[in-house]
Amino acid sequence: MRLAELSERSGVSTATIKYYLREGLLAPGHRVSATQADYDDAHLRRLRLIRALIQIGRVPVATARQVLAHVDDESLGQTIRLGAALWEMPHEPEPDESDPETAVVRAEVDRLLERLGWSTARELGTLSPNHRVLTATMVRLKHLGYPVDADTLLPYAQELGRLAVLDLDRLEEWPTPGEKVEAAVAGAVLFEPVLLSLRRLAQEEESARRFGLE
Amino acid sequence: MRLAELSERSGVSTATIKYYLREGLLAPGHRVSATQADYDDAHLRRLRLIRALIQIGRVPVATARQVLAHVDDESLGQTIRLGAALWEMPHEPEPDESDPETAVVRAEVDRLLERLGWSTARELGTLSPNHRVLTATMVRLKHLGYPVDADTLLPYAQELGRLAVLDLDRLEEWPTPGEKVEAAVAGAVLFEPVLLSLRRLAQEEESARRFGLE
Repeated sequence: MRLAELSERSGVSTATIKYYLREGLLAPGHRVSATQADYDDAHLRRLRLIRALIQIGRVPVATARQVLAHVDDESLGQTIRLGAALWEMPHEPEPDESDPETAVVRAEVDRLLERLGWSTARELGTLSPNHRVLTATMVRLKHLGYPVDADTLLPYAQELGRLAVLDLDRLEEWPTPGEKVEAAVAGAVLFEPVLLSLRRLAQEEESARRFGLE
Repeated sequence: MRLAELSERSGVSTATIKYYLREGLLAPGHRVSATQADYDDAHLRRLRLIRALIQIGRVPVATARQVLAHVDDESLGQTIRLGAALWEMPHEPEPDESDPETAVVRAEVDRLLERLGWSTARELGTLSPNHRVLTATMVRLKHLGYPVDADTLLPYAQELGRLAVLDLDRLEEWPTPGEKVEAAVAGAVLFEPVLLSLRRLAQEEESARRFGLE
């Protein structure tokens, strides 16, 4: 398809598509003449992902470029490729190493991972931004007077482990490794708001079940 | 305790405490002289909640005042009181009623709730901001080319229903209805970032289990 059709089918203006091409987010089309290029379904899919990252995920363009570089890197194993793309996404808060509580809370996170038997999470440790964000968030809660410990988090983590099985099952439905990684990135950005709304609805339901509705 | 001790124990400066008093977020202390007031553990607890709302939840002061008014309203039943406090929190996105997809997606949300047997969620319907946010988010995903339907969401909602049982169990540990509502508000603001980090760790674990780690 030509640029005009790519624009129409993706809902992204031709000016914005040209910007993404210049910024290296989108691969060039296949040249058919000195002034025209041809685009295919891979371009359309990539444009969809760029919109998700930038419009919903509010990921900066430079970060989006790094995420997409990992999406395209076929030399990486599947776990690393999935991880690398997601690890490039913005993460905050980062732990404050000058705060003595950080070491205390980190030990509590490791105790939780040990009880869960999550060996990957323990091997990756603070290499994983998710480990760091969890630690930093728990330090903040502790300072605010709402500490959470491994005992409290254990049953939640077990339920979330079951949700992760569903996530990976959905991912496996995509035919190619590249599409799997694309779907993982899109899912991280777009699916979390859906889950948070569903979680609140579930709480309302459970609350009404226990306390009634008047 | 006096203002200085309240400040020290809460970690909130006396100037900020005075601001919260003026804004009606914190109830006045018990007057012991023309210039001095006495504060108790309820003040300390409330200050903790105000910090959670404003510093972590980034809730505007006027909104925090409305949330806290519901926390304190003993005339309301427990479910309504919990709901009212949480419903006052900022919610976005809101559905765009001029978009024809909104009605289509809303019917899909209702189909999901029916299959779940969540009668409260269906009775409350669009009265609940959670119903509206879920609909609006799903409309955005659909326009971005990542539609999710009731079939996809059903198993997630069932897992989140089990998490909600844990949430309410934790809430029931608080002795008074007022403390329960306080804990629910704090949990909504503070606990979600913890769950999102745990979810990503769970995904890494499951990914390594399936695809290995190289």
